[in-house]
Amino acid sequence: MNASTLAEPGHRTDNATTPLPRTPDLHETDPARMRRALREYFTSTFDRYESLFQTLAADAAWYEPPITLRHPLIFYYGHTATFFVNKLLLTRMIEERIDPHLESVFAVGVDEMGWDDLNDAHYDWPSIAEVQAYRDKVRALVLRLIDEAPLTLPIGWDNPWWAIVMGIEHERIHLETSSVLIRQHKLAYVKPHPAWQPCTHSGEAPENTLVKVPAGSVALGREIGSAIYGWDNEYGRHEAEVPAFEASRQLVSNREFLAFVEAGGYAQSGYWEEEGNGWREFAKAEHPTFWRRSAEGWQLRLMTGEVAMPWDWPVEVNYHEARAFCRWKSAHGGQPVRLPTEDEWYRLYAESRRGVADGETPDANLNLAHWASSCPVNRYPQGEFFDVTGNAWQWTETPIYPFEGFQVHPIYDDFTTPTFDGRHNLIKGGSWIACGNEAVRASRYAFRRHFFQHAGFRYVISHAPAEAPAAYYETDKLMSEYAEFHYGDRYFDVPNFSQALARHAIAAMDGRPRRRALDLGCASGRASFELAQAFEHVTGVDFSARFINQGVQLVQTGQLRYTLADEGELVSYKARRLADLGLQDTVGRVDFYQGDACNLKPQFTDYDLVLAANLIDRLYDPARFLDLIHERIVSGGLLVIASPYTWLEEHTPRQAWIGGFKKDAENHTTLDGLHEHLDAHFRRIGDPVNVPFVIRETRRKFQHTLSEMTIWERR
Amino acid sequence: MNASTLAEPGHRTDNATTPLPRTPDLHETDPARMRRALREYFTSTFDRYESLFQTLAADAAWYEPPITLRHPLIFYYGHTATFFVNKLLLTRMIEERIDPHLESVFAVGVDEMGWDDLNDAHYDWPSIAEVQAYRDKVRALVLRLIDEAPLTLPIGWDNPWWAIVMGIEHERIHLETSSVLIRQHKLAYVKPHPAWQPCTHSGEAPENTLVKVPAGSVALGREIGSAIYGWDNEYGRHEAEVPAFEASRQLVSNREFLAFVEAGGYAQSGYWEEEGNGWREFAKAEHPTFWRRSAEGWQLRLMTGEVAMPWDWPVEVNYHEARAFCRWKSAHGGQPVRLPTEDEWYRLYAESRRGVADGETPDANLNLAHWASSCPVNRYPQGEFFDVTGNAWQWTETPIYPFEGFQVHPIYDDFTTPTFDGRHNLIKGGSWIACGNEAVRASRYAFRRHFFQHAGFRYVISHAPAEAPAAYYETDKLMSEYAEFHYGDRYFDVPNFSQALARHAIAAMDGRPRRRALDLGCASGRASFELAQAFEHVTGVDFSARFINQGVQLVQTGQLRYTLADEGELVSYKARRLADLGLQDTVGRVDFYQGDACNLKPQFTDYDLVLAANLIDRLYDPARFLDLIHERIVSGGLLVIASPYTWLEEHTPRQAWIGGFKKDAENHTTLDGLHEHLDAHFRRIGDPVNVPFVIRETRRKFQHTLSEMTIWERR
Repeated sequence: MNASTLAEPGHRTDNATTPLPRTPDLHETDPARMRRALREYFTSTFDRYESLFQTLAADAAWYEPPITLRHPLIFYYGHTATFFVNKLLLTRMIEERIDPHLESVFAVGVDEMGWDDLNDAHYDWPSIAEVQAYRDKVRALVLRLIDEAPLTLPIGWDNPWWAIVMGIEHERIHLETSSVLIRQHKLAYVKPHPAWQPCTHSGEAPENTLVKVPAGSVALGREIGSAIYGWDNEYGRHEAEVPAFEASRQLVSNREFLAFVEAGGYAQSGYWEEEGNGWREFAKAEHPTFWRRSAEGWQLRLMTGEVAMPWDWPVEVNYHEARAFCRWKSAHGGQPVRLPTEDEWYRLYAESRRGVADGETPDANLNLAHWASSCPVNRYPQGEFFDVTGNAWQWTETPIYPFEGFQVHPIYDDFTTPTFDGRHNLIKGGSWIACGNEAVRASRYAFRRHFFQHAGFRYVISHAPAEAPAAYYETDKLMSEYAEFHYGDRYFDVPNFSQALARHAIAAMDGRPRRRALDLGCASGRASFELAQAFEHVTGVDFSARFINQGVQLVQTGQLRYTLADEGELVSYKARRLADLGLQDTVGRVDFYQGDACNLKPQFTDYDLVLAANLIDRLYDPARFLDLIHERIVSGGLLVIASPYTWLEEHTPRQAWIGGFKKDAENHTTLDGLHEHLDAHFRRIGDPVNVPFVIRETRRKFQHTLSEMTIWERR
Repeated sequence: MNASTLAEPGHRTDNATTPLPRTPDLHETDPARMRRALREYFTSTFDRYESLFQTLAADAAWYEPPITLRHPLIFYYGHTATFFVNKLLLTRMIEERIDPHLESVFAVGVDEMGWDDLNDAHYDWPSIAEVQAYRDKVRALVLRLIDEAPLTLPIGWDNPWWAIVMGIEHERIHLETSSVLIRQHKLAYVKPHPAWQPCTHSGEAPENTLVKVPAGSVALGREIGSAIYGWDNEYGRHEAEVPAFEASRQLVSNREFLAFVEAGGYAQSGYWEEEGNGWREFAKAEHPTFWRRSAEGWQLRLMTGEVAMPWDWPVEVNYHEARAFCRWKSAHGGQPVRLPTEDEWYRLYAESRRGVADGETPDANLNLAHWASSCPVNRYPQGEFFDVTGNAWQWTETPIYPFEGFQVHPIYDDFTTPTFDGRHNLIKGGSWIACGNEAVRASRYAFRRHFFQHAGFRYVISHAPAEAPAAYYETDKLMSEYAEFHYGDRYFDVPNFSQALARHAIAAMDGRPRRRALDLGCASGRASFELAQAFEHVTGVDFSARFINQGVQLVQTGQLRYTLADEGELVSYKARRLADLGLQDTVGRVDFYQGDACNLKPQFTDYDLVLAANLIDRLYDPARFLDLIHERIVSGGLLVIASPYTWLEEHTPRQAWIGGFKKDAENHTTLDGLHEHLDAHFRRIGDPVNVPFVIRETRRKFQHTLSEMTIWERR
């Protein structure tokens, strides 16, 4: 079957030229209207996606990958259909697959967000006709569901219909990413198409100028119950104060960027950071990827053809190129030029919408409303600016990070989380083909910094550094287990161990002064925060810098993010906030330091309380710690020790154990050892108490331990 | 200070020549009489022990070790006093030490039972006067306690006064072992003493003859509440039927043994087993250790001097020499000569007491009643025999083992347990210096087979092999943990896992035939026994021969012994009996085999039930197991799978996991994997059920896990 004959039958082309509906209002209260809206939203998207592939000029264009490390386009043609089936299975709107084989082929390839985890398996791709027949079945299935499946309104996160909206939005993302792949394909493999006509306006570029943006605050994020579909990364909240800055009125045009190219910017490593130089050398890049040098001068590759360079269109580059341009401009203009942060983009957005009535949307080259290409950078004014939304995506300095309260959606738990790695930068504003969720203010897409989309940039002048927010998820097994142990859920109804110990310790203080407490072996730091509810100041000390980092992160950001092993390689994503534990007010009274309990620095002294929780059986020389700790505690102060006495050679050489062996022919327990080393300077108060704790290893496997707590009063 | 002047003051020598009282009746109901009896028992023992050291002729005799690998006698002089203090502290009859330094020096050296764990530290021994002063303080302390401490009768195991009786009996053991060390000391270091005069009767030895002992039963062991003090190894019960045998009427005399020496028995390795040859070559032994070759012919070393060889006294040898003599005698007489077993010695004892009235005791060279040496082997008739008790200890073929119901005494948990190693053989009957507990029928002392005591032997003629009873304590960490997991205590109130699973499985069988069940991955075997309560036959299969051995041991002996890690190196000794779990009747219906669940032998088939508990995530190829297991189950039969899905590369290569990963971009759980592999031949019944289990690692540390149980019906 010939691709051309396949790609142009009947009804689909008609829809392809009508405007695309916006992502629907999920707070709709009338089921019939909701079904109608979703039917139109689904059909227009499914049609327009198929229409896009009509720009392919030959069968080979479907099967030859446009760029290495990516599947061929036949994969993407099937993939968006299979995605519906997979997500509908997960929400139980359907019980069976349509075609298990094809659905295995189309389930996963290059992730639709663009990170390059393609494996090098050789695929035996199905024919175009087979895939078309499969798409037709999926189309029929989804339409039948939309028309007939039980529907409870509104459609929220946990509504099974969320899978339908997700499937449509997912296909809209691929509409754009596939258009980029087609733009990267061989020229011979593409052909013009009436529904995909580029803009014909172009001319010399207007000079770019700076616009002042006053300081202001931004409040980002959305509620779970929000009326408009969003991807997981849009939920939660983020607020910031943004200092004043200046921003370029227009996107950087091809003309403006040419100066950098002609100045040899691609050959000067000083303008590029390490990762950028790596890309530049690998790619042997000398100019923007869609520029073509020809006998007639510079040309620009569009989706289905090449045109003489439209100098007044936005330049399309990756992050590295955009950043290098800014460094070059800084170097020659004497001003701190850089890309905007995500927060700054929202300030631009707010400024550009000043005076615009609610519900009104300034016109923009967005949502396929005008052309299948960019257009001049001075065509769509938005307030003092042009193209704050639309025309081309705009790179930011901000690696994507989770808002406070971020959580993954249960049927798509790896949409965003793998990109919280500091290596995926946010793009904002949308391009000419961005539609659906891509075209809304709240959207947050991020790509590897060397990837190409229909993306360019706008620069800002600011003396404020562009700080990268914390996006880190603790994935180390021990660190994650301790984060959950200290801040996570209860298991087997066992109360939080650190909190229980801190409360015992605080109760034991009785009438004693509660100025300074030392949490020795503080690990993830929970007991330090708990003690700070009663003490004026708490020092948390641990041998491990990795643990200290968790405490420091909590002090700095109020939260800790980590993955929890569930089963095999499957994980859950967790975020724990001090505020949710009622500990937000303690932050100013806690400091964390790396330190060695067996060789404590002099400044750690003058304490009313020292807590040593699950510490002594992890020390290389517990006797030294016990023999010297009295020097750090005020007379009448307390030492609280808790330990399961799990002596292991890997932590403590056998000869350094203080108990757990026969001595002089009798059992010498660790409690005996504590007395042996502490009685000279301490008096034990009360009986030993068992304090249980549970450490979660997987969803089904736990360590369940009894720590023996003893309290010692400094003589 | 001179040892001689120290050793002969006042009152002690007087007591030393009066007969020693027997170990007292602890069922005494009158406190005053009890105090008096203990006072006499203590004083006579303490005096006699001090008197023994008066045979030392020089200070050097106290400080030079009589044999390598043993402490000098000064240690033993202090040790028996320190023992009182240590045990009184443990039962809280006292709260403070008398002399922490000396008590550290004297606490432990060569164990009093004789196994050679002496470390090579250099000791700075205290002076004799210091030790004497210390002994005087201990004497005063114990006497004060006996006179004044609160006393509740009777004195049982858990009575604090048990420590006093234990201390006395302990010193009586050292009275004997020290006498052996003195006998091994240089001749110049010893001197005769009026209280320690050897027997002067000797002459040519009478010919030894055989006495028939008819078949009979023996019932050994004693109850915890027994009236007479016993060491831990005497408690519990042991019953046996002993076939008829013949036994030598007398102990083997020096004369009878001479024939073996002169026949070159010490030079012929064929008479000695491997361990015996090792000793023989190390020691360069050519004759019994106390024999001396002199110009006037053979002499015999006694405790304080040498005498012309008394040919009619019992030869004193170690086990190896006694056994070699028997092998030599077998080789030359054509009859199966060997040492008696412990059971056979009790048959001798019963025969020798035939016709003796209750409460009467035949006279014997025992309890220091006659001399400080052996005497002729035909002096003390006991029934048809001589010296069934007394004169010299008699080696047996039986390595010491615990009776059923054995438990350690809480204040002396390593009196016997370290000797349950198959390397310590029982000696019976007592020697001339055996007194107190040593002189009672129930006593059970065991020494390494190469050690010397005042011990010889009697031989028996029997065609029955001398089987070594199981004395093995499982000490391997994993094996012990599983033994406790399957047969031990509940922790955190979690019901026994194997029992719970078996009950679930039996309930699920409903009306199905219950002929044959397969417990795959049976580990220690508990579920096999539980299933055998409902099935006609159960096969337990495990990959590990070590686990299979536990099941086999339970089938063969009805019990399993193991150590449980408590804290560090400290352990508890446990024995678990099928009878105590109500499972004794299942033994005939259970078989254990080593086998591979991924490659099951053909005979394991035709099952109504297959239980795979905590198995699938430990297999190297779980898919193969799941894909083939239907072949082993009858139509309508059940497969019960329980697993926490703890996939680990160390057990199952990553590519062999059946779940716990992303597949086609979606979570693929192990439950999904089970369906994938089982649905072709099985139908799942009911919902998955969590069955919890706890594995104890130490007294304070546990694994607490939720195993997911699913039940599958074979189509």
